[in-house]
Amino acid sequence: MSTSVEIICIGTELLIGKTLNTNAHWLAKRVTSLGLSVRRITAVPDEISEMSQVIKETLQRKPLFILTSGGLGPTFDDKTLEGVAKALGCKMEVNSNALKMIEEKYQRYVKEGLIEKSELTPPRAKMARLPEGSKPLINPVGTAPGVIIKHEDTTIIALPGVPSEMIAIFEDSVVPLLKATAGDKTFFETSLDVKGVMESDIAPLIDQVMHDNPYIYVKSHPSPTGEKVPHLELHLSTTAENSDTARNRVSRALVQISELIKQKGGKIKLLKA
Amino acid sequence: MSTSVEIICIGTELLIGKTLNTNAHWLAKRVTSLGLSVRRITAVPDEISEMSQVIKETLQRKPLFILTSGGLGPTFDDKTLEGVAKALGCKMEVNSNALKMIEEKYQRYVKEGLIEKSELTPPRAKMARLPEGSKPLINPVGTAPGVIIKHEDTTIIALPGVPSEMIAIFEDSVVPLLKATAGDKTFFETSLDVKGVMESDIAPLIDQVMHDNPYIYVKSHPSPTGEKVPHLELHLSTTAENSDTARNRVSRALVQISELIKQKGGKIKLLKA
Repeated sequence: MSTSVEIICIGTELLIGKTLNTNAHWLAKRVTSLGLSVRRITAVPDEISEMSQVIKETLQRKPLFILTSGGLGPTFDDKTLEGVAKALGCKMEVNSNALKMIEEKYQRYVKEGLIEKSELTPPRAKMARLPEGSKPLINPVGTAPGVIIKHEDTTIIALPGVPSEMIAIFEDSVVPLLKATAGDKTFFETSLDVKGVMESDIAPLIDQVMHDNPYIYVKSHPSPTGEKVPHLELHLSTTAENSDTARNRVSRALVQISELIKQKGGKIKLLKA
Repeated sequence: MSTSVEIICIGTELLIGKTLNTNAHWLAKRVTSLGLSVRRITAVPDEISEMSQVIKETLQRKPLFILTSGGLGPTFDDKTLEGVAKALGCKMEVNSNALKMIEEKYQRYVKEGLIEKSELTPPRAKMARLPEGSKPLINPVGTAPGVIIKHEDTTIIALPGVPSEMIAIFEDSVVPLLKATAGDKTFFETSLDVKGVMESDIAPLIDQVMHDNPYIYVKSHPSPTGEKVPHLELHLSTTAENSDTARNRVSRALVQISELIKQKGGKIKLLKA
């Protein structure tokens, strides 16, 4: 069964380097922790043509889930749903459930004294215009609902760009779907701090351990140079059918690579158990 | 003249959420500051098929530059250059200049007492195998050289994933190329802190200012909700033929949007002049 997920982050602020893409980082980590596999992360500007193009290209790779973040709000450049509709060749329509969610929010903002009038002005009502066939996902933190829509075997889930809103909708409405897909699958990782052996001399050791432990991925991350001794982090990870298998596999590889590094004169320290 | 740039970040650590993609952020900000336009940022795992696929797709969009980061080191999963070669349909070959750069590095590491032997083991020599037609770029900080190769009107530049190495090669070898392309073009940005008006009520003001100032991009970034008053950042930016024009355009739009927000009862503060 495919467990592939792609992440598409929408926002010109990412392309001009105004905003560090912590959303992609958070989503990638969380999706991986749930036993699924993120295959690609793409960031595009707030332009319908670019969004619809990247969504079409992504659909061709047939991931199980496409997660988008950004572009659901009330301003002119919040165009993600139009991009989705264009990619799927469907119309935009007012979704009555979404409209109700948004109405209730603005009524609450009036009660809380945040605004004076709860009337659904065009920018407010805009957030209830979804591609036909979509369902809104409750936003427990902000205003714009998340949106879910299925296309063939791919489920597209559009999340807001404000991190707290994205996280809240993800935890409430997306995690159950991903868990139902991944079952007991578990990602497990550990890290070793290695001093005294250069990356180029660790390379053949990694080859050997990965050959002997085919399910383990070992990656070296050199520290910025300038230190007096070679210094790097070795990261070992796997995704397995259940957590026991995952842990056992990583432990076995960890013992082997630790032994090999010591034989080369390296000093190791476990960073993450 | 097109000034489009795409960034491709290579590394499974990005897809599993181990590493926050600060490289993409740094590159996007720096490229934008030089007057060029980043059109897409993509992250893919350390797999030749994925890399070559994403490079082929990117070449079809004919950007002026493709900047990659990651995958130039000595380990088995440093495969970026193989991915480039596969995408371009060319062979890998030992580049004598690259080999010389790498040899000199390991000789220096011996002198500095970092390692005992400078011999070019296969993992070390691997870093000198480049796609045919490439030129190596001196790495002033680490070992693996950067690589530059032209395909039709697109210049592909491969940079290391270690941030200090990426930045050093970019500043020394890439900035002059981008400057020669962009000339006097300048990006200019400023930010307003806005309190007391909701994003949905600012939306029509942004529409008006962008209509009256066609070269200015205005984007609202709401603060995480939960505060007692509506709170957001308004970001105004433009890229113009020279810095005076850029500043003047942004100033004009800033005056107009400030006035409109005050009329709505909002409080503003200049965040960035």
